[in-house]
Amino acid sequence: MSEDWRGRRVLVTGGAGFLGSALCHALGAAGAEVVALDALMPGTGARRRNLEGSGARLVEGDLRDIDLHPLVEGIDTLFNMAGQTSHAGSQADPFTDLAINGHAQLRLIAALRRAAPAARVVHASTRQFYGRPQSLPVSESHPIAPPDANGVSKFAAEQYWLLEHRVHGRPVTALRLTNCYGPRMRVVDARQTFLGIWVRRVLEGQPFEVWGGEQLRDFSYLDDVVAAFLAAAAALSGTDGAAGRPFNLGGDAPVSLQALGDAMVAAAGEGSYELKTFPAERAAIDIGSYHADDRAFRALTGWAPRVGLAEGLRRTVDWFRPRLPAYLSDEA
Amino acid sequence: MSEDWRGRRVLVTGGAGFLGSALCHALGAAGAEVVALDALMPGTGARRRNLEGSGARLVEGDLRDIDLHPLVEGIDTLFNMAGQTSHAGSQADPFTDLAINGHAQLRLIAALRRAAPAARVVHASTRQFYGRPQSLPVSESHPIAPPDANGVSKFAAEQYWLLEHRVHGRPVTALRLTNCYGPRMRVVDARQTFLGIWVRRVLEGQPFEVWGGEQLRDFSYLDDVVAAFLAAAAALSGTDGAAGRPFNLGGDAPVSLQALGDAMVAAAGEGSYELKTFPAERAAIDIGSYHADDRAFRALTGWAPRVGLAEGLRRTVDWFRPRLPAYLSDEA
Repeated sequence: MSEDWRGRRVLVTGGAGFLGSALCHALGAAGAEVVALDALMPGTGARRRNLEGSGARLVEGDLRDIDLHPLVEGIDTLFNMAGQTSHAGSQADPFTDLAINGHAQLRLIAALRRAAPAARVVHASTRQFYGRPQSLPVSESHPIAPPDANGVSKFAAEQYWLLEHRVHGRPVTALRLTNCYGPRMRVVDARQTFLGIWVRRVLEGQPFEVWGGEQLRDFSYLDDVVAAFLAAAAALSGTDGAAGRPFNLGGDAPVSLQALGDAMVAAAGEGSYELKTFPAERAAIDIGSYHADDRAFRALTGWAPRVGLAEGLRRTVDWFRPRLPAYLSDEA
Repeated sequence: MSEDWRGRRVLVTGGAGFLGSALCHALGAAGAEVVALDALMPGTGARRRNLEGSGARLVEGDLRDIDLHPLVEGIDTLFNMAGQTSHAGSQADPFTDLAINGHAQLRLIAALRRAAPAARVVHASTRQFYGRPQSLPVSESHPIAPPDANGVSKFAAEQYWLLEHRVHGRPVTALRLTNCYGPRMRVVDARQTFLGIWVRRVLEGQPFEVWGGEQLRDFSYLDDVVAAFLAAAAALSGTDGAAGRPFNLGGDAPVSLQALGDAMVAAAGEGSYELKTFPAERAAIDIGSYHADDRAFRALTGWAPRVGLAEGLRRTVDWFRPRLPAYLSDEA
């Protein structure tokens, strides 16, 4: 974090969620004046307790209808972490998915135009809309082929934000995230990330399920993700061409899901997993292997992951061990 | 047109518009039972008179709220021509743009799932979301970089439809159109296509304006566009891999806008134009040159344009000459 955040007004949407709350903690510690906006919707991983000790002010509200003007007026930076991310949910109800990732984002964009015309924006985007990779690693120029409605709406959201640079000159960038993990992630079930349910099962003394097993994935540890968002904001104030561009964000070297299962058991010092074969209908929509080519972001910002997979999993399991009961329901 | 359309039920959304109504005429002549759904919104080029003599039944209704079940039940094919296409309009009101190209398309998709699970769909898409071409000609794998909110929503619409193949196996394809022109196009102003206002000015004995002049563009004559949509539908019934893919549709060889201006004057046998320089803010969002690489579609279907630019312009001007007064207002 090369910037001086003291006294800067920052809005973090989705601020009570897994990534958003970690940003609030980091920004609060750095002296920023942080507002966390969150609708505290069940299933998103948002919790009031995630913000305890961060110094952030939580505003409970939904981007689809809350009056945004007072929240964005005078802000220096927006970290835009709010969004619908459920893949299965988007297929069951693409209307709500689009309302959250499309319409609500347009509301936020309009509010910023009126009340914070110079504010920087770092938007949380996703690798998901690349679909099944045509080659590895996947760079930002990989074709866009969303595997579900959520991929369609998340791409639209990202592009609406990048347009604010192309058309209006706002300093905006987007980070296309891969699997993120760490303290405060949602462990209720597999909805947000399968790593969540793995952590839960291991700590409950139950075997977890590894589907497929040979697919490669890359994983970003929470602290590295937070560092990347702060580096992205700083890059927007430089003259180095971050504005208007999306960047992939990867992590440690890719591993197979089976190797990840082994690493999880080793990190926890206990537990086991069952290797499962995809049913045909699930195999048809599985994206296969993915890992990010994030050289553009590393070259631009100097960012690199500092926490390897073994260490990250150990920290995650250790963090949840005494706190698991508080994270087993979706009560915010 | 290699298919036998007799007795087939066909729905054409945007059926009273420029391209939609031409499809209705062709399908009606081929013996199909055609319903044209159109909201007859001012500024879209939709007119009741466009359907005169087509045999199509016009249903006046808006995809955003009309009960779609009775319209889609039992259809063989949907030609999905409805959409918000105004670039400037989308920037002024991206909410309405998204409601039409996003939410309304999801309604149509949901209705088809319930009432026409096997129907073929040919979706009218656009080259517009490629943005400023990185190289020419532009193939389907060109990066997606919408230059305005309309490009974002039109890409979302296309991807929602293609998902219906990827996830549910529906025979769907999309044609990414370039500049289309011909009888019944909107000539009120430059909103739908600059060629419209050129035709109007020429026939009114006024000089038209050519902005820039050196940019290359390609142009598809109406009859060729209609043939392409029918060929696309036929390809969906074959085993040749059209389903789930988007295809560029080009036309005759690309020309500079200045050469197009000359061709327009020659076709009309009268008129003149003024060459104008883009103001800086307009130059910033101009996409420069574009022409389509549409070899994939030509190879798959055997389609090729039959009407060259000189002939197409001549036919267009001749068609409008006696009809211009009826096309000078947006009254449907």
